[in-house]
Amino acid sequence: MSQALSEYLKQCLTDDRLQRFNDVVKFRTRHLTVVLENVYHEHNASAVLRTCDCLGIQDVHVIESLNSFAPNPEVALGASKWLTVHNYRSEPDSSDRPPSNISVDCIRHLKENGFRVLSTSPRQDSLPLSQVPFDQKTAIVFGAEQIGVSDEAISESDDLIHIPMFGFTESFNVSVSAAVILQHLATLLHASDIDWQLTDTEHGELTERWVRQSLGSKLEPLIRRFNDEQISR
Amino acid sequence: MSQALSEYLKQCLTDDRLQRFNDVVKFRTRHLTVVLENVYHEHNASAVLRTCDCLGIQDVHVIESLNSFAPNPEVALGASKWLTVHNYRSEPDSSDRPPSNISVDCIRHLKENGFRVLSTSPRQDSLPLSQVPFDQKTAIVFGAEQIGVSDEAISESDDLIHIPMFGFTESFNVSVSAAVILQHLATLLHASDIDWQLTDTEHGELTERWVRQSLGSKLEPLIRRFNDEQISR
Repeated sequence: MSQALSEYLKQCLTDDRLQRFNDVVKFRTRHLTVVLENVYHEHNASAVLRTCDCLGIQDVHVIESLNSFAPNPEVALGASKWLTVHNYRSEPDSSDRPPSNISVDCIRHLKENGFRVLSTSPRQDSLPLSQVPFDQKTAIVFGAEQIGVSDEAISESDDLIHIPMFGFTESFNVSVSAAVILQHLATLLHASDIDWQLTDTEHGELTERWVRQSLGSKLEPLIRRFNDEQISR
Repeated sequence: MSQALSEYLKQCLTDDRLQRFNDVVKFRTRHLTVVLENVYHEHNASAVLRTCDCLGIQDVHVIESLNSFAPNPEVALGASKWLTVHNYRSEPDSSDRPPSNISVDCIRHLKENGFRVLSTSPRQDSLPLSQVPFDQKTAIVFGAEQIGVSDEAISESDDLIHIPMFGFTESFNVSVSAAVILQHLATLLHASDIDWQLTDTEHGELTERWVRQSLGSKLEPLIRRFNDEQISR
């Protein structure tokens, strides 16, 4: 998209709106990312997206090899439209490919891109949250309700982590678990000297996407009007 | 209840079960407590109870002046049966008493019992989580979905607190908010030199309640059998 069109579209939003984009984009990070493996309860899916938006975590990787992911709009409060959601799902014609390989593909892709991948697991050998290493780009994998992260995803992970628990209930709800872990890591990140913010190019691209997102159904007519004005000049 | 009956009932549970009670009761605290003011979504109510159990927070104060509190058993995983839930609700015949006074009563009761009461609020003058004072017994008030903590409860509170947020969505889901705040405070508590554990008497009473709870429908026949054995001796 041309710089001129981009500026034209920005002028269609209020200054307050653009200021908000600037304020929010400064806290966006790709240093910390989230993988949701077959989380299916709409309330949980939505709450995790909302948490990611609140904490500035831009990328969410959604694996749908067993269950489909259907956030509840009332709980998500539109959070997903400000995030970058990466989908990993079975192709209908690939019945020869076991579903679990989709998780393996996702995790390998993240590792190739420099992420340390940590899966949440109550296993004895998993690290408590306070000992989670954090000197590298980090992806946290959360598993489906009841069954947790798949064995295949656990095998591919660099480490396992858990939140220490002291009660009769031996697991947190997945949306709660995600919030506790991500809030802890985001607080560490903000206090660290890690270069966790987006690059200037990423700022520009993301703001442009948000501008288009905000214009909604007005976007297409505005682009047509812009093109007409260009031709008639 | 007599010591003899208490010992008799304990013998009806497995050693593993009793050991679990001992392990869990050591981490129970009344130093930190939770107030839920009109939280009505069953998924949220249940998730907060589960979080309290997981973190060892024994007492939950439930205000039902506007909405009734109905935890979802599937999400709560039975957590409420291990907690001490204090109910504050309107009496059907007290229509002359405004509902908001129920929250005031609850908060005043906690303050009289030595608690600093902190209400969660996005207001500008509220303290960020990292600055929450913690040198005194502390009660955290969470409000109803959408509307938040009532003005009356806010006026009665010692301070307001919030979780810093950096996204477009300006509030966390209530179950997420509770988990983040309570996990942060429970971690501080465990690391502090505060005497946060229950007293020996409280240990004994709570364990006895859990024993009875665990026996379920077997409890009454066991008590009858114990009494018959006493008489026939």
